[in-house]
Amino acid sequence: MPSLSKKSIDMPASPIRKLVPYAEAAQKRGVKIYHLNIGQPDIETPETYWNAVKNFPNKVLEYSHSAGNESYRRKLAEYYKSYHINVDHTEIIITTGGSEAVLFGFYACLDPGDEVIIPEPFYTNYNGFAITAGIKIKPITSYIESGFALPPISEFEKLITQKTKAILICNPNNPTGYLYSAEELEQLRQLVLKYDLYLFADEVYREMIYDGKKHKSILTLDGIEKNAVVFDSISKRYSACGARVGAFVSKNKDLMTSVMKFAQSRLCPPTLDQAGAEASVDVPDIYFENVINEYDSRRNYLVEALNKMKGVLCPKPGGAFYTVVRLPIDNADKFCQWMLESFEFEKQTVMMAPAPGFYATPSLGQNEVRIAYVLKKEDLVKAMKCLEEGLKSYPGKTN
Amino acid sequence: MPSLSKKSIDMPASPIRKLVPYAEAAQKRGVKIYHLNIGQPDIETPETYWNAVKNFPNKVLEYSHSAGNESYRRKLAEYYKSYHINVDHTEIIITTGGSEAVLFGFYACLDPGDEVIIPEPFYTNYNGFAITAGIKIKPITSYIESGFALPPISEFEKLITQKTKAILICNPNNPTGYLYSAEELEQLRQLVLKYDLYLFADEVYREMIYDGKKHKSILTLDGIEKNAVVFDSISKRYSACGARVGAFVSKNKDLMTSVMKFAQSRLCPPTLDQAGAEASVDVPDIYFENVINEYDSRRNYLVEALNKMKGVLCPKPGGAFYTVVRLPIDNADKFCQWMLESFEFEKQTVMMAPAPGFYATPSLGQNEVRIAYVLKKEDLVKAMKCLEEGLKSYPGKTN
Repeated sequence: MPSLSKKSIDMPASPIRKLVPYAEAAQKRGVKIYHLNIGQPDIETPETYWNAVKNFPNKVLEYSHSAGNESYRRKLAEYYKSYHINVDHTEIIITTGGSEAVLFGFYACLDPGDEVIIPEPFYTNYNGFAITAGIKIKPITSYIESGFALPPISEFEKLITQKTKAILICNPNNPTGYLYSAEELEQLRQLVLKYDLYLFADEVYREMIYDGKKHKSILTLDGIEKNAVVFDSISKRYSACGARVGAFVSKNKDLMTSVMKFAQSRLCPPTLDQAGAEASVDVPDIYFENVINEYDSRRNYLVEALNKMKGVLCPKPGGAFYTVVRLPIDNADKFCQWMLESFEFEKQTVMMAPAPGFYATPSLGQNEVRIAYVLKKEDLVKAMKCLEEGLKSYPGKTN
Repeated sequence: MPSLSKKSIDMPASPIRKLVPYAEAAQKRGVKIYHLNIGQPDIETPETYWNAVKNFPNKVLEYSHSAGNESYRRKLAEYYKSYHINVDHTEIIITTGGSEAVLFGFYACLDPGDEVIIPEPFYTNYNGFAITAGIKIKPITSYIESGFALPPISEFEKLITQKTKAILICNPNNPTGYLYSAEELEQLRQLVLKYDLYLFADEVYREMIYDGKKHKSILTLDGIEKNAVVFDSISKRYSACGARVGAFVSKNKDLMTSVMKFAQSRLCPPTLDQAGAEASVDVPDIYFENVINEYDSRRNYLVEALNKMKGVLCPKPGGAFYTVVRLPIDNADKFCQWMLESFEFEKQTVMMAPAPGFYATPSLGQNEVRIAYVLKKEDLVKAMKCLEEGLKSYPGKTN
């Protein structure tokens, strides 16, 4: 047969997928699995979304503008203003999910072989996007002891070479839930100015912020209008992961002109889902209040329950709906597999994401897992009971 | 500011877009424009599609499977069987439009710098996908005198080097409308076997075939199961360009495993549109009969009207809804611009796609345009009258 490309070989399989066969086998044995492994919220997509889609007026499902419908982009600019982000519709290109926004950023800003610095642990799919674009990720480690705060700027500077073109943060963070402070963002602002780098921020969890804090976008930082790029998505905002509607946002006109060429080549993002997204900008505040209260209550319960378990360390995340937890175990991959393959408590078990998949540095995260609090509290309670029992009987426990 | 990537610079702007400001200015002057420049059909998306979308049962718009919903893939396998294509659901990955299927093919099969041979004139966006993937297109010229038939295999062989990994055809062809014969496909079959190349076929116009002929997919060719890859889309089939639902189809298991990794990294294609696509597999035959009769009648009228004009040569296309026409003009880019900028007939004019944008070899197609017959016949009649009058008064006419 003809050969496969090197990218094909290098491309990582999803680390969570490795556990799927064990989960399927457990289900066949009649074991109920609490899925804390994925970022698929159980929150209902707002009525405004469904109404717009179900009342779509056209008879032909036409291409939209390659940058997305202008009416949606204008609406989205209004939405951003509510976060003090001052952009107009020409500074927004609607993408096919946040995924495509990341790819556009990599294609337009980095040449093959160029480097982007990303604090680890980081969202696994950045690896796939980097390989697709032929670029390199340079990880900079953040630590559970500091709640996964931004590593010192001096550590970033040690990694910067001629090949470094960008720094990418996810704020609030997937997988850690960490919310970067205004001071940390200011440090990054100075850093990208000093070295003339792009600052990419994946801000798709902007709404999910707790403890009365506010989200601060990198697009509100002064003097880095040419450097700052936001990757956005409605997947988490409106619990519409299947919509595949994201956005690439920047005030750098030359960059937007370039990204537009990539956007034109793939024609357009989904038309119908853009109608849903546009209508959802007007979703009543009570929708988000309910969503945030729900996640906040789950978070509070989860963090407390985890920290009560012997040998478990769980920082309190300031945003998103994930937390990375240290467990008293030898190996997270083995433990997560064992929980599905060899353990059950009252015919139930828990599926979690082993943290090593979120680190680029080998051997890190061996005793950590990512837990997504995307289940209602009564299920979380049962899931935590399973985890506690599992930790007691796991052969590789370390305490 | 930070520098842009080389890809950004190399990426071509859409050649049709260059005409948009002239079209907008014409509209402002009150001139009605017949849009024969784009592949956006005016046919209604089937009721089955809208019903499935509007009756979507879930309250949460969740991610689908990264390969697309299994139920849709199983249904699509049935659809392919009706074209004698023997694939099962594991040999199909649902993509975000046909665009993503092409990109997946390029990523998975070709390394940066590798070459794909494509008969020209070809679909302009292949250029963008090639630059995105860092690969090179080697054009092989087909000629209007033979109706844009497949160039001789000896010409292909002259282009094959160590870097050649694939041949890409579009069948029936955009922009020429040419339908490859069984003999031509057999020649390609032998060629890719001899040189161990991938054979990519963009078959998104499979339904639009005239004169009682049948479409033959490269997936029905014996002995090239490891070589053959079909790029598909529902955009034209169900007049659902805005759905962004396509497919990557191959019986090469190793290739499918690789492509699946790229599919996982971008999570999934649009969920709601997949429901519409799945339901549309059951669209009654009468839908296609009506669509094909409509296009056939437009085609017959258009080809006859064009060939009646002095100095015009229009081959009769066997499929799709495009034709590339030779006009008695000095320069197609200038002529198409002039028709919008300086010409009107009874307050009307025509927008066409200059053919040079479809050729990779410089200077080819200077006196050719692509016409898409995506308007109803009474509008086509008026559009042809405009074209005829335009050709009479164009300063750069050559006869």
